[in-house]
Amino acid sequence: MISLQPIPPLDTVPAPPLRFADRTHRMVPSETRALFSMAARENVVSLAGGMPSPEALPAEELRAVLQEVLAAEGPQALQYGSAQGDPVLREQICDVMAAEGIEASPDEVLVTVGSQQALDLVTRVFVNPGDSVVTEGPTYVTALSTFAAHQARVVEVAMDQGGVVPQALADAFALLAAEGRPAKFFYTVPTFQNPTGRVLGTDRRREVLDICRRAGVLVVEDNPYGLLHFGERPHRALCADAPEGVIHLGSFSKTLAPGLRVGWARAPRAVTDKLVLATESAMLSHSGLAQRAVSRFLGTRSWHGHLATARSLYRDRRDAMLDELAAVMPDGVSWTIPAGGFFVWLTLPAGLDARMMMPHAIEGGVAYVPGTGFHTRGGERHLRLSYSYPSAGQVREGVRRLSDVIRAEWAHGDASRLQEAVGR
Amino acid sequence: MISLQPIPPLDTVPAPPLRFADRTHRMVPSETRALFSMAARENVVSLAGGMPSPEALPAEELRAVLQEVLAAEGPQALQYGSAQGDPVLREQICDVMAAEGIEASPDEVLVTVGSQQALDLVTRVFVNPGDSVVTEGPTYVTALSTFAAHQARVVEVAMDQGGVVPQALADAFALLAAEGRPAKFFYTVPTFQNPTGRVLGTDRRREVLDICRRAGVLVVEDNPYGLLHFGERPHRALCADAPEGVIHLGSFSKTLAPGLRVGWARAPRAVTDKLVLATESAMLSHSGLAQRAVSRFLGTRSWHGHLATARSLYRDRRDAMLDELAAVMPDGVSWTIPAGGFFVWLTLPAGLDARMMMPHAIEGGVAYVPGTGFHTRGGERHLRLSYSYPSAGQVREGVRRLSDVIRAEWAHGDASRLQEAVGR
Repeated sequence: MISLQPIPPLDTVPAPPLRFADRTHRMVPSETRALFSMAARENVVSLAGGMPSPEALPAEELRAVLQEVLAAEGPQALQYGSAQGDPVLREQICDVMAAEGIEASPDEVLVTVGSQQALDLVTRVFVNPGDSVVTEGPTYVTALSTFAAHQARVVEVAMDQGGVVPQALADAFALLAAEGRPAKFFYTVPTFQNPTGRVLGTDRRREVLDICRRAGVLVVEDNPYGLLHFGERPHRALCADAPEGVIHLGSFSKTLAPGLRVGWARAPRAVTDKLVLATESAMLSHSGLAQRAVSRFLGTRSWHGHLATARSLYRDRRDAMLDELAAVMPDGVSWTIPAGGFFVWLTLPAGLDARMMMPHAIEGGVAYVPGTGFHTRGGERHLRLSYSYPSAGQVREGVRRLSDVIRAEWAHGDASRLQEAVGR
Repeated sequence: MISLQPIPPLDTVPAPPLRFADRTHRMVPSETRALFSMAARENVVSLAGGMPSPEALPAEELRAVLQEVLAAEGPQALQYGSAQGDPVLREQICDVMAAEGIEASPDEVLVTVGSQQALDLVTRVFVNPGDSVVTEGPTYVTALSTFAAHQARVVEVAMDQGGVVPQALADAFALLAAEGRPAKFFYTVPTFQNPTGRVLGTDRRREVLDICRRAGVLVVEDNPYGLLHFGERPHRALCADAPEGVIHLGSFSKTLAPGLRVGWARAPRAVTDKLVLATESAMLSHSGLAQRAVSRFLGTRSWHGHLATARSLYRDRRDAMLDELAAVMPDGVSWTIPAGGFFVWLTLPAGLDARMMMPHAIEGGVAYVPGTGFHTRGGERHLRLSYSYPSAGQVREGVRRLSDVIRAEWAHGDASRLQEAVGR
């Protein structure tokens, strides 16, 4: 029996130096996340975060479901599980994806810790340091962190109101191929994109798939918002029409609850097999409890009824934001009209900078995410507004405050420009 | 409104080639995991898996705790959380570690998806492809998978009954330093090691810390079993005596429930900061529900009473295994005497090969893990037996069957050697 006696102090040799890996030097705090603490101040209406509304999460039903899981299959739910994920849940995920036209087999599905882990695993499996990844510009902020952590070279392709511009995508692929560094994949959020709320149009979906296939480039379709559509029917996923060329990432974080951390990847079988191996060394397996809770919810509760409620709630908030924007914003400010999801992308008049304006916005009682966070460079004139978390009334109040901040910023700019002109 | 009409079939351009990253070619199915499906056959007593006993998991208490969490703090538990983990839980983890002599601050703690994810994140943050990692030989099988996935070069250091051999460790560090590739860290399971059940002795702990500090090499102390000690008191963690030089990994998987997937890393603050950033791009944040369940269990139930029950259960099973081994094993077979944890490491007589013997063992109704799984090479004469999952009666039955298998293998070997000798 060894006792708990402390070991005498070590000699005065210093602690070992921290020799981090090269990739670690590219891991820096994201501007966006740093803002969240500012946005959490009292009296600030936050249009910054992309969290789902607590009112849209089925908390009571999940409580009952968790009880049922522990009563009926507690020992299994609390034990280790398979790295690929619960087989019943993987079948149900195939049914969920069918709503967007995807025909998948459970063998192709991996359950992940949100779709963020799915993206990390896909990047891990495909990207060597220095490899190119093509994204929309702007794109999801934490995708950029993931690509940076894997030392990818990120090439942004321009978007317009109809999503990524096909010719620009083809040009980017051609340029990279000519350099001998063909893109490893094209990362896209084609439906209700984060941060713009835009949808890639049907004709463009066909064009984009065609361009990717001709260039021999895989598509990684990130789709956390697809089922939160404000029109009657969902959009058809890219994966539905090119299952061999598209890895599809999905999530229950926006529809059921982020706190369960259940997402997934659907990939061609040869890719899924590698993702499963990567999962094993990354975390052994996902939570049996969380997986079985989602599975039982899908199997015994009204998934479609729940989604309908959530859509209606987010549509009302979207409407509140768009109505108020139209009512109060000064000329020269424009914004996207999302048909689903959580976000509006706002463009300031030339001469204003959303990042420079941020401290004034916080003083003025409103928070947003500056556009620079969603780009590898540029984006100063843009900002992301989210209507998912605050109430409709808060959304309206936030937009009114933002309008005041923009007007003040513009007036201040005018004054500065005048001062410069008269040579102070 | 875009309809769900399928896009017409793409031209007959083939699907894109799968250009995996270099690291992915090193991701291959582990022999050990493949065995688990064989071991799951009916009529096979499995001494292979390292799962905790269902009888030792507080399923009823966890059910009540989850109810309380959802009733009292459902919206928070179901929402996104911080990448570093729940602040209350991180404080409680410091209290848990204090039992092994560690004085830590919550700022130094990161909550992870089991300690497996902690190890993956540490490796990600420190290891460039080709960097050296030093381990005990044998060592934890999935640590080897993690190091392979990060393209580390693994250098094994010999152990004896008292744990890793200090001189061999010093020699390995010196050799690597002389090659200009100093070890990034020494990965060790000093207490009730997986797979050997061995404990690094108190004097050796001092020696090992001294050697690592002089060589400027960080220690990664993986400690999932430390609180499952069969003696009266726990062992003092390496981290307790060299907090600036040791990253300590812990887990609730063996003590509370693997299905919650809650583990942690305690590291020097500069390392923790990088681990938090790596976590964010790897999965955003851990499950709020799982973290709050563990936190409430620790805060409102008898953690020490629960641990005492678990220790007693595992000690009984260990006793059953050791008694039966002593009663039935033929001469020439030896094994370790674990003072805690889940595992016994068995050595076969020269001439026998545990991997070759495995199909005969399955036929004979018993499963184990061949020693080769725990080494980068070698280990043929060894095998790991676990007493954690089967009942004491099953443990005894499994050991009796294993004895029969070894005797038959030996007799068959005798016959083969005779045939070879007479030149058939």
